[in-house]
Amino acid sequence: MKILLTNDDGIFSDGLKCLYNQLKNIGKIYVIVPEIEKSATSHSINLFSPIRIKKIEINGISSFIVNGTPVDCVKIGIKKIIKEKIDMVVSGINPGPNLGMDILYSGTVSAASEGAILGIPSISVSIADYKNFKFDSASIITVKIIEKLKKVKFPKDTILNINIPNKNLEEIKGIKITFQSESRFSEEYEKRIDPRGNIYFWLKGTFKEKTKDKGSDVEAIKNGYVSITPIHLKLTDYSFFKKLKKIKFEKIEF
Amino acid sequence: MKILLTNDDGIFSDGLKCLYNQLKNIGKIYVIVPEIEKSATSHSINLFSPIRIKKIEINGISSFIVNGTPVDCVKIGIKKIIKEKIDMVVSGINPGPNLGMDILYSGTVSAASEGAILGIPSISVSIADYKNFKFDSASIITVKIIEKLKKVKFPKDTILNINIPNKNLEEIKGIKITFQSESRFSEEYEKRIDPRGNIYFWLKGTFKEKTKDKGSDVEAIKNGYVSITPIHLKLTDYSFFKKLKKIKFEKIEF
Repeated sequence: MKILLTNDDGIFSDGLKCLYNQLKNIGKIYVIVPEIEKSATSHSINLFSPIRIKKIEINGISSFIVNGTPVDCVKIGIKKIIKEKIDMVVSGINPGPNLGMDILYSGTVSAASEGAILGIPSISVSIADYKNFKFDSASIITVKIIEKLKKVKFPKDTILNINIPNKNLEEIKGIKITFQSESRFSEEYEKRIDPRGNIYFWLKGTFKEKTKDKGSDVEAIKNGYVSITPIHLKLTDYSFFKKLKKIKFEKIEF
Repeated sequence: MKILLTNDDGIFSDGLKCLYNQLKNIGKIYVIVPEIEKSATSHSINLFSPIRIKKIEINGISSFIVNGTPVDCVKIGIKKIIKEKIDMVVSGINPGPNLGMDILYSGTVSAASEGAILGIPSISVSIADYKNFKFDSASIITVKIIEKLKKVKFPKDTILNINIPNKNLEEIKGIKITFQSESRFSEEYEKRIDPRGNIYFWLKGTFKEKTKDKGSDVEAIKNGYVSITPIHLKLTDYSFFKKLKKIKFEKIEF
């Protein structure tokens, strides 16, 4: 297999290193990552400054670093850097969950989405916890899933968003195909005063689980399973579409 | 009405000024915008540096400027700045289309999406052209649509993405409720050399229309109509979900 591997945490991230070390056993890996950490950049792209690419070798991994976002990395990776057909875009492993409505903010999920937009089967991988990340175990699981996905035809503009419990391999209960929960962070801003007397704010929050969430990504993780959620980028709300059709917008006179 | 008005082009944008001048006739308007232009920032948020808010008055508009993205503006606007219940989040007017698959990259659409995530009826407004923007005409149309929407119950996590032809009021043919086209920009990177001999790249592209696109946002604009597309943030691909269920992932042994 030929794989473009990216990671929104940049070249120094453990999630990248561990996953690379497993992936190199199954194919040729192109590592293309942002020059600096770019978490929570969602699907943003660099339109107003020039993109530069550096080829480097670090910790034995030959990599390209790009002064842009995770989406820029995938876009310029496919369009310019890699000269052959790629079989898969893999984004991760992210240290932290990408579950429920919070995937909208995720650079990890968006990098995979860009792969899908460019017509390549793409997955995003995250460990659904906040510390002491078991990247080795998650990397082994990711490779096993990729092997299984080799024969699967991905629909247009659809990715698989994978979340892995932060456990040792033998403690993982199995894999569930899930839907995206409506759960999300409940956020607030903490007010502080800097040493010069100026007010500033930090965003903080706690993840609020929906109670009725059977079969969701959030539930699978809670029960110790790997969650695989098919996520697509066709966003029309057809049920609201039908309701809106009944409102006589054509009667508005300009 | 009480409206949070934002704009990813920041405080100096004509689209903001023209829309403000129309909106102030129908309610109390809170202007909350990024400190600097933040196009193509999608749903990114500022997690790693503190958020600061400045209250300023410029061109007779009392505004809050935030050192973050359009999504940060809406989030801190609702959570911290505004002390009363808001009836609508309005994001725009953007000088440039937000159509088809390209809405994923849009700061304008994402700011509205954040409003929906926070439970407020939200719309994004763009002029679907690239120059000589007729913001006055588009602002009048936006206000008429908002008046009509007052009685409409927005579903959870759903926005209306509005694109307006760049025409004088009397040339607009009417309003269409549309679906999101699968059309998108076809992009490439232009290679250049800077004065110091270093290579850099600019992203460029042209919008590629799908031929069979009847009833879409792209088609409505092409035919001279205002396009209103209901866009939701529930991203599960249920058809792929069913296919994946048939693959025996549970047989993978760790």
